[in-house]
Amino acid sequence: VDFSLRRTQGIDAGLKVAKAIYIAGFAGTSNVLAGKRYGIPISGTMAHSFITAFDEEIDAFRAFAETFPDNTVLLIDTYDTISGAHKAAEVAQEMAAEGSALKGVRLDSGDMADLSKEVRAILQERRLSGVVIFASGGFDEYKIAENIAKGAEINAFGVGTKMGVSADAPYTDMAYKLVKYDGQPVLKLSTGKRTLVDEKQVLRIRQGGTLVKDIIALRHEKGEGEPILRPAMKDGKRLQPPEPLHLIRGRFKEEFGALDERHKSIVQPEPFPVALSPGLQKLQKRIVHEVKEKELGES
Amino acid sequence: VDFSLRRTQGIDAGLKVAKAIYIAGFAGTSNVLAGKRYGIPISGTMAHSFITAFDEEIDAFRAFAETFPDNTVLLIDTYDTISGAHKAAEVAQEMAAEGSALKGVRLDSGDMADLSKEVRAILQERRLSGVVIFASGGFDEYKIAENIAKGAEINAFGVGTKMGVSADAPYTDMAYKLVKYDGQPVLKLSTGKRTLVDEKQVLRIRQGGTLVKDIIALRHEKGEGEPILRPAMKDGKRLQPPEPLHLIRGRFKEEFGALDERHKSIVQPEPFPVALSPGLQKLQKRIVHEVKEKELGES
Repeated sequence: VDFSLRRTQGIDAGLKVAKAIYIAGFAGTSNVLAGKRYGIPISGTMAHSFITAFDEEIDAFRAFAETFPDNTVLLIDTYDTISGAHKAAEVAQEMAAEGSALKGVRLDSGDMADLSKEVRAILQERRLSGVVIFASGGFDEYKIAENIAKGAEINAFGVGTKMGVSADAPYTDMAYKLVKYDGQPVLKLSTGKRTLVDEKQVLRIRQGGTLVKDIIALRHEKGEGEPILRPAMKDGKRLQPPEPLHLIRGRFKEEFGALDERHKSIVQPEPFPVALSPGLQKLQKRIVHEVKEKELGES
Repeated sequence: VDFSLRRTQGIDAGLKVAKAIYIAGFAGTSNVLAGKRYGIPISGTMAHSFITAFDEEIDAFRAFAETFPDNTVLLIDTYDTISGAHKAAEVAQEMAAEGSALKGVRLDSGDMADLSKEVRAILQERRLSGVVIFASGGFDEYKIAENIAKGAEINAFGVGTKMGVSADAPYTDMAYKLVKYDGQPVLKLSTGKRTLVDEKQVLRIRQGGTLVKDIIALRHEKGEGEPILRPAMKDGKRLQPPEPLHLIRGRFKEEFGALDERHKSIVQPEPFPVALSPGLQKLQKRIVHEVKEKELGES
């Protein structure tokens, strides 16, 4: 679940993050406006300030359960996670007596793997096996993997800061460059920043449902593979209506599933192979030669 | 100069970056809307696409000079920086003959320190000592320091990506926590995330114009130092009108100037000393004790 709004670089960025991560497979967001605007499931839990506003922690738990009997996730680490777990279990039994059910508890500090096992034991002891354990607090893909490897009894993760600002990869070095002007292929030769000439197509090659290779080709070049670039706008107008987010999400899931595991490892993934087509290589060579001759006086 | 708009995490973030960095001492921004909205000096140069849209580089230079005779900065690395510098020098002499002057040239790729020295020599040879050398392309404070250390002949830097997304420190771990409720000081004890109770004041201690130490104290506690927190809002209303950006910028410059160099090094800066007042320490100890007694049954 996306918990990043309070850390994203502005409110606008927060909306874009919520949308992007839902496409990428997150289950929901705590960003209520994103939920309303894009139809993303909303999921949030109580704040520490809600707990500390009550004279006793258990009174905060009871008040929340009474207000949201169908959607109560209790934050149990405000004073001490284990003591909080016992109180949550008590409130869960009170809720059961009233005909409702505690949805979950949330850990937000300490050693999550160890604590989650202790909390699970406390819940099991009181026959509360349906209660979900959420965890939040500084998670990213590496910390999640580490906790899973340690056998953590965590059912769901709230991920905020490091995902919302893309902490380990805070930018993508992409830029707009001219490739064709007035019918002529053009390029720049700048050291380490040379561009590829002319309009392109990308040909994607699959083998038995698995993605094998992309080939960057000239726009109308014939070659093996499925052309994956399609016109999206013409004369300043969209050519298709916007798609519902769940369709985009479904397509991402399918395509990502078709990518071999070795390209998806969170540690040292192998880059997906991308090649240049013969037509593009040939044109590139010719234009580089022509530009060098014209601009640098080389022959 | 701020060149970050194309990389900031949304347009809204781009405006905030332009404003923040102007306060912090940048000379201007390439973000035209930020310039208009906040009164920040605007500074930009031509794009590679402008150059590649012309049949020859020197024609692009001439067209730009004709359109902006008083504000021409020529981007010289599209095909080859040295060849571009010769062409820029030629256009500078043509401009001089017309009674205008070339403002500068910009390097955007390659070894900037070496190239800047070569470009400076080309400009000197043609008696163009007034032409400023700009550099852009992946700069951050470390790369700027490295180039200055190498004796680069660069007068101004365009800084974009790494500053606009705060690449080396992409988030600040701050959060809202309740410190007082219904007249009672409150706190959370969560492992590694314990908060400090009650309303605060910060007392700043100076010695002969230099900042020495900050003390976090209770709101109305007496103590050495100048109280630096003042009410900004009351009942949902600002208490003072917004200040012009240049005043905020001036104040920042003054305060930053009062900070010792060892706290400002870009490599391993020494943290500025911050202490807790006796009154805060005493109240904190008492409330921690009370909460432990009440919530955890400790005595």
